[in-house]
Formats: sequence, structure tokens, C-alpha cells
Amino acid sequence: MPRGEGAEGETAQYSQPGKVTLVGAGPGDPELLTLRAVKALRGARLVLYDHLVSKDVLRYVAEDADLIYVGKQAGHHTIPQEEIIELMVRLASDGRSMVRLKGGDCFIFGRGGEEAQGLERAGIPFEIVPGISAAQGAGAYAGIPLTHRDHAATLVYATGHLRGANDADLDWAMLARPRQTVVFYMGIGNLPVICGELQRHGMRADMPAALVEHATLPGQRCICGTLQTLPQLALDHHVKPPALIIVGEVVSLHETLSRGMATPASLLEG
Amino acid sequence: MPRGEGAEGETAQYSQPGKVTLVGAGPGDPELLTLRAVKALRGARLVLYDHLVSKDVLRYVAEDADLIYVGKQAGHHTIPQEEIIELMVRLASDGRSMVRLKGGDCFIFGRGGEEAQGLERAGIPFEIVPGISAAQGAGAYAGIPLTHRDHAATLVYATGHLRGANDADLDWAMLARPRQTVVFYMGIGNLPVICGELQRHGMRADMPAALVEHATLPGQRCICGTLQTLPQLALDHHVKPPALIIVGEVVSLHETLSRGMATPASLLEG
Repeated sequence: MPRGEGAEGETAQYSQPGKVTLVGAGPGDPELLTLRAVKALRGARLVLYDHLVSKDVLRYVAEDADLIYVGKQAGHHTIPQEEIIELMVRLASDGRSMVRLKGGDCFIFGRGGEEAQGLERAGIPFEIVPGISAAQGAGAYAGIPLTHRDHAATLVYATGHLRGANDADLDWAMLARPRQTVVFYMGIGNLPVICGELQRHGMRADMPAALVEHATLPGQRCICGTLQTLPQLALDHHVKPPALIIVGEVVSLHETLSRGMATPASLLEG
Repeated sequence: MPRGEGAEGETAQYSQPGKVTLVGAGPGDPELLTLRAVKALRGARLVLYDHLVSKDVLRYVAEDADLIYVGKQAGHHTIPQEEIIELMVRLASDGRSMVRLKGGDCFIFGRGGEEAQGLERAGIPFEIVPGISAAQGAGAYAGIPLTHRDHAATLVYATGHLRGANDADLDWAMLARPRQTVVFYMGIGNLPVICGELQRHGMRADMPAALVEHATLPGQRCICGTLQTLPQLALDHHVKPPALIIVGEVVSLHETLSRGMATPASLLEG
């Protein structure tokens, strides 16, 4: 079919789609935003943000920019993932550029890969700005090195958001191996299962384990115990999401290192 | 012994030690520095920095500040780790505050844990500023999600700096498990061993694997292949450290995602 007016008119509205900048907002402390993230936020006319993005981070967005909340909370999904992608594609197809702001890092349990795939399929240009992961924030602010020559040669990020007690996605035998640090995201609701399965697969009951709640934020709490004691400690201290579970010998360094740290941290010892 | 003049005089010089701020400089692109890192660098009168810190990052340091290079290059250690700690303790004991600047994140293969322990033992106050890890930078700039619902439920950081072909530190059986992404730091010199051991422990020969050289810097190269082809590709393309090895199905997304990315990336397909 030769180019006709109708065809040209139809394609015109899609000719210059907006760009989507997927930005990792880091763990919460706005000082942990990257320069590139701040630049993207300051320049944005439209920001789609998640539940785990802190209020202080949103202060970098211009007052007259449009903010759309697309967050999900455990249990009740506000907007299904597919709809978030459709919304971004629709807005970008209308020529609107935007920042898609996610807690932590977009490519570590942030479903940024799926969003990037959806954008690519729709022909929407995008870029990725990495962010400090919650694990890095928790380690740095609570004084828990994630790797250490004497304790952990390997660092593992896993999701504790299980579909059931016998979730096939989690390779417990692998997670229970020695000389590694394992950080569970979104696992607080399954803490007894996690601590139990790790022991059942050979990890010692007195392996140090910590909960870091509201990592890097003023209300940060670090509760240390062992695989055996941590579930009860979590109940005693009313730990709520978002909280990370860190398992491994490096957790034993927290007591000493947090003592030497110049930055005051709100700490609770179990 | 009652307090005497001599005793007071002796302790006086140690009464107000300087503070050490351990700062993760990120993977190279200075735009990936955090706000907190920039603030620390701008305010520093003394900076001890590593080999993997990029020149553009050092531009944030005041011109009249003192810069001390304590970097190590593979093969020839410039200054042993213990001496770096001793140097920091000596300087801080003399009342000098400083930034200790490391590539990537201080607590992920940065030996920041050991340095923090050394400082704590000497009574030197310190704080930790996390940085974007090289793996995050490589993933974001090359279009390789580190986790993905369809491909990788777990993310593993390992060191490829082996002591020998049969290094006891690396748990090959664990690293070869399915449905995970494994990132090897400092492994380029042992690439044939790494690819061989993963296959010997059950990973399929055509598992996608990538080398990301100079991640996030203008000269970034991403060379994709499989466990079987990657060692030869590394030779063909003369890949040199620093380069990361990323192994896992997520690597297969690179071709599609990098095509959709707005940021031009220097890419080489194997």
C-alpha cells in the first residue's frame, strides 16, 4: 500500500514516543540516591513510583510534575504488573517521557527486567539507572559486611516471598551452604519457614542471623540472633516489612562494628 | 597509678582521632556516585584511593586535598592490606580525618569489613557509605537484569580470584545450580577454569554467559556467548581486567534490551 494521508496521520501520533528512565531509588536514605537518579528526578515531568520509595526521595521531584502511585503492598496488589507496563507504554506513546522510580535497584527483585522487556516490545526507548540495593544499605548502616575473607566468599540475594512452604523456586540446599552470606528480600512473613528450612538443610542452629528493618532510614532497627532465636525475636520486637533477613557469619561482626561506627544507628540486640 | 602529667601528655595526642569515611565509589561512571559519597569527597582533606577508582570520580576531591594511592593491581600488590589499615590508623590517630575510597561497594569484595575491624580495634571512628556494585552497573548499562521471574530467582556474587584450579573457597556445585545469576568478580584470568568447572558440575554448555569490561565507562564492552564459547571470545576480543563474568539465562535478554536502550552502549556480540 502506497503511503496515503490516512496512514501518515495514524503513524504521526506514535512518531516520537517519550522515553522511560527506570531509576533505582535506593533503600530509603535520600543521600544514597545517585547523581544520575537526582538528575532524572529533577528533570522529570512525570514520575511513576512504588510503595517502597521514601517520601524524602520524592522531594527531588519538581512540585508541578505529575506523580502516579503504582505501588504494591504485600497481600493487596494495587496495580498488576502488566497494567503498570501498559500504562507506561500508553503514556510514552502519547509522547510523555517519565521516570519509573523503584525502591532499591531496578534489576534486583524490582521486576525492572520485565518492564524493560515490555517497553522494548512496544518500541519505547528506555534507560536504566541502578540504585543502592536494600542489602547494601542495611550492611553499611548496620555494620554488617556482606562478604569477608574470614567468613563469606560468596553473597547470595534471594527472595523470601514464597508461594508456599515448599516453594519450588527456592533451592534450600544451595542457600544452606557454608561460607556465604544470604540476604532474603520480602521474607519477614515467612521467617519461621526460612529459618527452619535452612536448618533442615544442614545450616547450624546457632548460625548468626539478623533482621534489618527500615534499612538506612531514621527508624532503622537491627535485631541480631541466630536461626533458632530469630523468629521469636521478630515477634517480640514487632518487626514489620520492609525488613531484610541476613544470614551468615558476617552478622557476628555487627556488634563490634556498629560500636565503632560514627553514625548513630538505632540498634536493638537480641 | 594516679594520673600524672606524663600519662596525660601521652594520652593527649590520641584524645581526638580523625574519622575515616569508607566510601564506595561505584563502578566507574561518576554519575553513579551517591549524594553522600560526593559530599564526603568534597569535604575531604585527605583521600586514600584504590586502583579501581576512576579518574572522573577523583575530580570531586578538592584540588588542595591530599591524595594517597594505595591501589593493588592483580599480580603485584602495591601495599599489603595490613599496611593500609596501619596507615589509616596512624593518620587518624594524628587527628586527620579521611575518606577511604574503594571501587564498587566497600562491603562487597572490597575488604571494607577488614578495614572497619582494624579501625574499630584501634578506636578510630568510622562510617560506611555504600556504592553501586560493578555487577549492578554492568547489568544496568548492558541491559542484563540480575534477577528475573522467568530466569533467575537468586543472584550470587562470587570471586573468581582463585588461589588455584581447585580452590576450596569456591563451591562449584552451588554455583552451577539452575535458576540463578552468578556474577564473578576478578575472574577474567581464570575464565577457562570457571567455565569448565561450572560445566563439570552440571551447568549446560550453552548456558548464556557474558563478559562486561569497563562497566559503565565510555569504553564499556559486553561480549556475550556461552560457557563453551566465552573463553575463546575473551581471547579474540583481548578482554582485560577489570571485567565481570555474568553467567545465567538473564544474559540472553541482553541482545533485546540493549536494542531498546536509549543510552548508547559500546557493544560487541560474540
